[in-house]
Amino acid sequence: MLQKQIELARRPQGIPVMEDFRIKETEIPEAKDGEVLVKTLYVSVDPYMRGRMQDAKSYVEPFPLDEVITGGVIGEIISSKGDKLQKGDIVVGNLGWQEYSAVPETNLQKIDPSLAPVTAYLGILGMTGLTAYFGLLDIGRPKAGETVVVSGAAGAVGSAVGQIAKIKGARVVGIAGSDEKTAYLKEQLGFDETINYKTTENIALALEKACPNGVDVYFDNVGGSISDAVLTLINKFARIPVCGAISSYNAESAKDDMGPRVQTALIKSSALMKGFVVNDYRDRFPEGAKQLAEWLKSGRIQYEETITEGFERIPEAFLGLFKGKNLGKQLIKVSEPE
Amino acid sequence: MLQKQIELARRPQGIPVMEDFRIKETEIPEAKDGEVLVKTLYVSVDPYMRGRMQDAKSYVEPFPLDEVITGGVIGEIISSKGDKLQKGDIVVGNLGWQEYSAVPETNLQKIDPSLAPVTAYLGILGMTGLTAYFGLLDIGRPKAGETVVVSGAAGAVGSAVGQIAKIKGARVVGIAGSDEKTAYLKEQLGFDETINYKTTENIALALEKACPNGVDVYFDNVGGSISDAVLTLINKFARIPVCGAISSYNAESAKDDMGPRVQTALIKSSALMKGFVVNDYRDRFPEGAKQLAEWLKSGRIQYEETITEGFERIPEAFLGLFKGKNLGKQLIKVSEPE
Repeated sequence: MLQKQIELARRPQGIPVMEDFRIKETEIPEAKDGEVLVKTLYVSVDPYMRGRMQDAKSYVEPFPLDEVITGGVIGEIISSKGDKLQKGDIVVGNLGWQEYSAVPETNLQKIDPSLAPVTAYLGILGMTGLTAYFGLLDIGRPKAGETVVVSGAAGAVGSAVGQIAKIKGARVVGIAGSDEKTAYLKEQLGFDETINYKTTENIALALEKACPNGVDVYFDNVGGSISDAVLTLINKFARIPVCGAISSYNAESAKDDMGPRVQTALIKSSALMKGFVVNDYRDRFPEGAKQLAEWLKSGRIQYEETITEGFERIPEAFLGLFKGKNLGKQLIKVSEPE
Repeated sequence: MLQKQIELARRPQGIPVMEDFRIKETEIPEAKDGEVLVKTLYVSVDPYMRGRMQDAKSYVEPFPLDEVITGGVIGEIISSKGDKLQKGDIVVGNLGWQEYSAVPETNLQKIDPSLAPVTAYLGILGMTGLTAYFGLLDIGRPKAGETVVVSGAAGAVGSAVGQIAKIKGARVVGIAGSDEKTAYLKEQLGFDETINYKTTENIALALEKACPNGVDVYFDNVGGSISDAVLTLINKFARIPVCGAISSYNAESAKDDMGPRVQTALIKSSALMKGFVVNDYRDRFPEGAKQLAEWLKSGRIQYEETITEGFERIPEAFLGLFKGKNLGKQLIKVSEPE
């Protein structure tokens, strides 16, 4: 039996294109002892994956060329040679962009589809939610009454960040790239102010109006000129969790990502800027997952998904992230559970 | 009786020039009740004062135009209408660039000239030493065996930072602007490696050689292209205390201080960058002062001073800071104690 896989065919130069990926067919593997065979139900595509396509020192190894790309996947156990997982179990794990995977059962986590839709485990109850939770609460530390600005606010991480900041009593300003997105943030999620950066001529001025008391926390998902503008408004002891720099991921060289240096702004405000990745908080995942599940259950946090159907459309959905096409978490539905 | 004062005549554009300052003569004031009359012995000039000459929001108010500039001063009490300070006492405080000051005695701190030369209280035992102490230990947190890079390493703050890092068991690499300075750092202060940024063609390459295990702590006194280069070498969980940006202070606008954006580097390394000013640590000054005095007494810390003689040469000495003329703390000797 054959299955499809998607490999990294070459390292993208600038904005990735379809030709950077290659779909191929291989035999569906068999599970060995201790392994399970997983059928892929949903695949998650995330901006950070762009970094792994580069051959550069980073917090995770680059994806090897001509090998299957890996990322967050929800799957169903088709057959098991393990002790714990059984046929029919729904699991989440870091798996290949392929229709079937044979992996040690210890690489997977079983999820409970009765608690929340299974896709939530790739989003608000998974790495996405944990990224928002730890970045905002451990680095940003918003206090009631403070102003929190979130860029990439309608994305999976950004929309969670804004809602958690609201739970903590902060005034939340979201920056996003369409009127549909800003309306969603304001009307659905209760953001206090929003800015559509694509239609706003002077971002700095719009931010100044939206943040009359300055900026105490800036949760940075995008980098680039939007972050340059926010940095001019930071208050004394501001905190800036640096989660993503989607505007820079496609820069072909450092020269394409130049901006005002941050040192003077940081000194003037005794401000803190800290990069992080969710795995820095691995030891505290249970704490975060428990809190997020409670907030989700009590309706204090909502989430949105953009689901693209069809295995072969994974690259297209990934490329869409850099065009701002998705509202909330971008997933690809690969198959139905059996 | 007349005395001399130095006022800010206009706000500097770019690199300050002598014409930005004005020397004038006024009556020597008299001390009112609760005040003392202080004769200025030494004046401290510091890079941060450049920021106060700008009319911009910052951690301290801008210097007003046409008024006397203020800064760190060591003085001698000439007459007292206070309860605590007496004629002959040597004091340190934030006073005007003038030969005599009448101020409330509560604005001054008495110092003990038998413990250390009085000038040390403007340097290693004063704000300079405390800046190094708190910035390095609270933000940088060097561990034994880690690599600490210091820019502006032969300056008053930088040379203290390097020595404290050595006390903590770190490997210390200093960046400075002359062979005389790098020799001083290596031979006198025990720095492990040094780089003369003025004669080194490829700073990034020189840093890579000097830091084979990467950079764990970067104490940033200078900003600009030197900091750009260090940021390419930071290790996972690096810490970057941002103390000064002397290379940027004279930029006429933000456009003159452009460089590679830091977000991607911070994310890749989960690194922390934090601006600070010494007053952020006001509550902990006694702790820092005590420790610095102990290290000074036991010979574990040394310091260097560049002393210019003559009140009227204060502006010249200040301008010299931006040309890298000083080794260690730059002071001006104004008068002898009586």
